[in-house]
Amino acid sequence: MSDPASDHVAPPRVPLEEMERFAFEALDAVHADAETSEALVRALSHASIHGVDTHGYRLLPHYLAGFAGGRLNPRPTPRLVHQKGGAAVLDGDDAHGSRATYMATEEAVRRAREHGVGAVAIRNSSHFGAAGAYAIDIAQNGMMGFAFCNSDPFVRLHDGASRFHGTNPIAVAAPTGEGDPWLLDMATSAIPFNKVQLSQSLGIPLAAETASDAEGRNVTDPMAAEMLAPLGGAFGYKGAGLAGISELLSTALSDAPLSTEIAPMISDDMSTPRGLGAFVLALDPAAFAGAEVFFGIVRRYLESIRSSATRPGGTVLAAGDREWAEAERRRTKGITLDPTAVEAMADFARRNDLAPLALSNA
Amino acid sequence: MSDPASDHVAPPRVPLEEMERFAFEALDAVHADAETSEALVRALSHASIHGVDTHGYRLLPHYLAGFAGGRLNPRPTPRLVHQKGGAAVLDGDDAHGSRATYMATEEAVRRAREHGVGAVAIRNSSHFGAAGAYAIDIAQNGMMGFAFCNSDPFVRLHDGASRFHGTNPIAVAAPTGEGDPWLLDMATSAIPFNKVQLSQSLGIPLAAETASDAEGRNVTDPMAAEMLAPLGGAFGYKGAGLAGISELLSTALSDAPLSTEIAPMISDDMSTPRGLGAFVLALDPAAFAGAEVFFGIVRRYLESIRSSATRPGGTVLAAGDREWAEAERRRTKGITLDPTAVEAMADFARRNDLAPLALSNA
Repeated sequence: MSDPASDHVAPPRVPLEEMERFAFEALDAVHADAETSEALVRALSHASIHGVDTHGYRLLPHYLAGFAGGRLNPRPTPRLVHQKGGAAVLDGDDAHGSRATYMATEEAVRRAREHGVGAVAIRNSSHFGAAGAYAIDIAQNGMMGFAFCNSDPFVRLHDGASRFHGTNPIAVAAPTGEGDPWLLDMATSAIPFNKVQLSQSLGIPLAAETASDAEGRNVTDPMAAEMLAPLGGAFGYKGAGLAGISELLSTALSDAPLSTEIAPMISDDMSTPRGLGAFVLALDPAAFAGAEVFFGIVRRYLESIRSSATRPGGTVLAAGDREWAEAERRRTKGITLDPTAVEAMADFARRNDLAPLALSNA
Repeated sequence: MSDPASDHVAPPRVPLEEMERFAFEALDAVHADAETSEALVRALSHASIHGVDTHGYRLLPHYLAGFAGGRLNPRPTPRLVHQKGGAAVLDGDDAHGSRATYMATEEAVRRAREHGVGAVAIRNSSHFGAAGAYAIDIAQNGMMGFAFCNSDPFVRLHDGASRFHGTNPIAVAAPTGEGDPWLLDMATSAIPFNKVQLSQSLGIPLAAETASDAEGRNVTDPMAAEMLAPLGGAFGYKGAGLAGISELLSTALSDAPLSTEIAPMISDDMSTPRGLGAFVLALDPAAFAGAEVFFGIVRRYLESIRSSATRPGGTVLAAGDREWAEAERRRTKGITLDPTAVEAMADFARRNDLAPLALSNA
């Protein structure tokens, strides 16, 4: 267990451009094709620049091992296996989740442009990183974007005593026609599992009603935490229900496995594809009351949040505001990595004869 | 303030058929047309039979006053004002929310049948009762159904100190091809406002982190509660973000007012239409991986919830299970009403020369 004081040591930092340089070379070394490398770097940069470090470049070594081991297909041919009007099912051919999902958002936007609404359900994909990357991609096309996935189970049901749902995110982005969109990217669990791991390593208690022991009883001792609680505390049936939205959208439309049926992400088996599902939706404002009406109302909504009364000591933020501020800082100061990821990347560089990652503060 | 002991007095009950008989006659008395009466009775019966009494027949006198006063149009001509492929905007012509929204679900289902996906944004509507009624209507057509609305503000933002969002529900229903669907119908606030009123009248404290005073500080004294908290307690930014999904879907696509811009539901002004927005979405499984695949996975999901391990003293339910059980009871024992609603209906019957509502336990 690391010393609590280590929390105060500045984390390793690297300029985004250098991180991307290294990622492209590393992906080349595992024979990833250009579409895969571009999609993966784009998704990881989205997460790392916006401060979502759990889903950022710390996962690169894990993904590289997946390509090397065969779990991930480095040169996939994702294709539509069902389609009708605004709807389609995309088979990812065991692509990295970013490769399959960016193809799905492109397809959803194209269909929404033609049919007003575009929805693509995905199967035979894999972990796609931060859901917000795909919602924002749709918003950057001027549409309201949604992204959902399920994943291997860490979260109990309300009053449950087993790991049932994944952290099953819901991500939604609404463009404003100028500047940053409104962006919600939330897990439907109370906290992410890495919060438990962090509390374990720092020896600090968990917040109440966020994690449970093996019998499903709430615990604050992180060493006793066996599963996460759904969002909502005493009203956890709502959090479990929200997880169910992501679960059903990601499985029942595309024929993908339920969270309880998915092989673990962290495992010795890096050769078997995991067959994950996901779902994206694009709504084109032009097919409703018009793009300018839409953008105007989203802007009015954002302004009204930002000028809203705050409680003593509080700060009111619109969904996404924290991320835009963090991106501003990180574009100057670089993204952060954790020491374990840095070591894994150094090791990968040595084994593959790549120029090592040049940290800003090594 | 009523005596806490009154909680133990059996509430007035009435068979559903008698309640519907009375509602149709009362709606006739305020000159509601057949489509309006059928939609409203259907929505109120959905809520009352499933135990959602806050949105059930207790609202009938309020709606009757709206028709009589001019807030609600008893003979509206709702119509599509924009349409393209799977998308449409419906102008409700100040119809009761149920009239406008059932027309929207019918339109969404029709468009989904043709384009795979159907989405209808609504404006110039009014309070529509329980959102679940519309999600379930889509599910009864074999599709995955979604319904959202915003409403006049009762809920603060995370760290906020003013009423900002409505209780902005999210309702989703997934059909199984046999028997009851999966049905989530949740407010994005921690609790409904009538929970505060009930706690006030019973003199019992509120659950922690569910309501705030005028400065946005959490309170458990119901007499000090000025606004509701968003779902999530310490993670209330998630609840506020979920409220934002309903808010933007219900306003920005159709050009309807934000929650902060809506005239209050409970008001002396029963003559001015409130111009509410809402949004419904239908996904046709037949356009994705097929209806049988969809139904099979939803059934597997429901079975896996219902056979899941429970924590000591707990019971695990799938979203909707509580409602189906309550509907079973109420079909035999009748629906429940509160004494205030019963008195208002008796008064309406006297003034309009209608046969009074025949309670089972009067």
